[in-house]
Amino acid sequence: MKKYLLTPGPTPVPAEAALKESLPIIHHRTAAFGKIFEEVNEGLKYVFQTKNDVLIFASSGTGVMEGSIVNLLSPGDKLIVSDTGKFGERWWKIAKAYGIEYVLLKEEDGYPTDIEKIKKALKDNPQAKAVYTTLTETSTCVVNDIKTIGEVVANTEAVLVVDAISGLGAQEMHSDKWKVDVVVTGSQKGLMIPPGLAFASVSEKAWKLVENAKLPKFYFDWKQARKSIATKETPYTPAISLIVALSESLKIIKDEGMENIWKRHQLLADATRAGVKAMGLQLFSKAPCNAVTAVSVPQGLTGSAIYKKMRDDFGVNIAAGQGGLKDKIFRIAHLGYMEKFDIIIALSALEMTLEQSGYKLELGRAIAEAEKIFLSGCV
Amino acid sequence: MKKYLLTPGPTPVPAEAALKESLPIIHHRTAAFGKIFEEVNEGLKYVFQTKNDVLIFASSGTGVMEGSIVNLLSPGDKLIVSDTGKFGERWWKIAKAYGIEYVLLKEEDGYPTDIEKIKKALKDNPQAKAVYTTLTETSTCVVNDIKTIGEVVANTEAVLVVDAISGLGAQEMHSDKWKVDVVVTGSQKGLMIPPGLAFASVSEKAWKLVENAKLPKFYFDWKQARKSIATKETPYTPAISLIVALSESLKIIKDEGMENIWKRHQLLADATRAGVKAMGLQLFSKAPCNAVTAVSVPQGLTGSAIYKKMRDDFGVNIAAGQGGLKDKIFRIAHLGYMEKFDIIIALSALEMTLEQSGYKLELGRAIAEAEKIFLSGCV
Repeated sequence: MKKYLLTPGPTPVPAEAALKESLPIIHHRTAAFGKIFEEVNEGLKYVFQTKNDVLIFASSGTGVMEGSIVNLLSPGDKLIVSDTGKFGERWWKIAKAYGIEYVLLKEEDGYPTDIEKIKKALKDNPQAKAVYTTLTETSTCVVNDIKTIGEVVANTEAVLVVDAISGLGAQEMHSDKWKVDVVVTGSQKGLMIPPGLAFASVSEKAWKLVENAKLPKFYFDWKQARKSIATKETPYTPAISLIVALSESLKIIKDEGMENIWKRHQLLADATRAGVKAMGLQLFSKAPCNAVTAVSVPQGLTGSAIYKKMRDDFGVNIAAGQGGLKDKIFRIAHLGYMEKFDIIIALSALEMTLEQSGYKLELGRAIAEAEKIFLSGCV
Repeated sequence: MKKYLLTPGPTPVPAEAALKESLPIIHHRTAAFGKIFEEVNEGLKYVFQTKNDVLIFASSGTGVMEGSIVNLLSPGDKLIVSDTGKFGERWWKIAKAYGIEYVLLKEEDGYPTDIEKIKKALKDNPQAKAVYTTLTETSTCVVNDIKTIGEVVANTEAVLVVDAISGLGAQEMHSDKWKVDVVVTGSQKGLMIPPGLAFASVSEKAWKLVENAKLPKFYFDWKQARKSIATKETPYTPAISLIVALSESLKIIKDEGMENIWKRHQLLADATRAGVKAMGLQLFSKAPCNAVTAVSVPQGLTGSAIYKKMRDDFGVNIAAGQGGLKDKIFRIAHLGYMEKFDIIIALSALEMTLEQSGYKLELGRAIAEAEKIFLSGCV
């Protein structure tokens, strides 16, 4: 059975990038690799929409999240976390592991960051070193208003750190223009290559914290990583084949252009939402993001059963809910190397899955609604 | 834009076979290649459903068609050709190039071989050495009743030669059980690898003709090719990477099983037909084959415009009509490495193309009908 991957990471890899990844490994202490490393850094700046250096690590996204704690803070520091789901939660769990005190601004599942809470927390905790939040919260499929949060935090001494792991390259994001000090992401999402690399852009305001941060660190030391960009010599062995693949996917991104990429994701998200609504289903998120759509499971069914049937009977791998949302939602990603027929496939597989699960629906309606969106927007 | 290939050759290549094709070239005068060559011959026998050796040539399908003339006939011989379209026509055009006299049984476009005509031609021409026909006529999307033709020809001195280039691996075909003496095919159809290889299975009855055939030949000499199967040493340099890819695709075929493969193509063809009918369109073929579906172009539109719009605006490469049918039909292939969502994509792209071309239809209906077929048959 043919397999289709519509999860919010890993995401499909364009053949051009996968083939580059398979070329014979070159050594990293060479001018040839140095040139690729330099190209990659320039390409990343474009995706991040920043003039700052973008640090590169061989790690999962969680690695650079940890790096964003240990490189910015010292024992006794306090931070503010806006937690809109499993990935917002990860910020304070890392802080906790390092004994850092945090102000937790927890939102109900499906709701975005309440910016008034951030304002109040900053006012109540003027000594807070940083605000940590999320661009697109993968677990609830919520998008947060980073632009406004950026305005709020920029007026304080604190830095703003944004987990854009599932959002960058899908949801509009301007690191510099929106005054975000640290933006982190991973390779297996909007960057369209396999998992294994993670990235952090760091502003001058944030580098000042880095200079004084006393939390213990070694591998994720940002000062070392920054030096490597200047010298084109990484401190440790880089994930060479992934960086080579990234150099190709960044060219693909540059060719399409960030504005067009954001528009494409908007269109895919709109079509997905229109499709699931046409099946009589409800969106779970109150502020749906453009990377992945959470659908509330209709009465009488379970999210994991829908997920499994789509995967096993139709070859379409979407995502189940995480944690407490396991059976309450399922999630269809439209993230990265995705186009209209990926959405058509997901909706068709969902129609057939629901039909066979005893859910009443009119076959083809979801496709019709998605086609209308595509006809209005992309051709 | 992502590209989808739904033409009746070339057809999509499974990644497993494409990756094998990319492995470092081995030399053909080695035991390693001999082993692959042997495996391939066994695998081909299974696909052809024959105990006869299957000869392998680096050529397009037309090469083995020419081989089927020059290896079976001598100057002064007469043959019978059932011509159901562009590819039936090719049989007599090759015969003509070699100065061989032929009895032409031409059918109107869209109609299959009239078997009564073959019976009469054999009766009127008892000296005819061979009957040439086609399993699935790619230009009109007709399937011929090879089983019955096999019964008819087996009762005569003539051999039956079948062009199964687009049909083998899609449409039920039993070379031995149906008493077909020569079956030819190419690599880029049901065998799911790129173009460049062509094949012919040859019965003992046909080998007797080969022994006495006097038409000039060199590269396509079947006696040389037969010897290579016994010795595992090809007379000339074989297309090594394609044969390696074929060894992989034959494993995929064996794993699925011919019966299942025929059933899958039946289901894909049924869904395609149901889908286009739901759009109010008509099938062109009076005996539709399971490899490719010909759709009559509705009034006010042209086949080439539909074909071009689907390709350029939606990335879906179907086939236009050939020759005189260029603007009268378009053809959607469901041949080889194809599954249900390939059909869903084709139908969705066609719905959107027709909608934008001013043709009145209800979006989503074709998908609904195709989904019903899939739900009834394959899950």
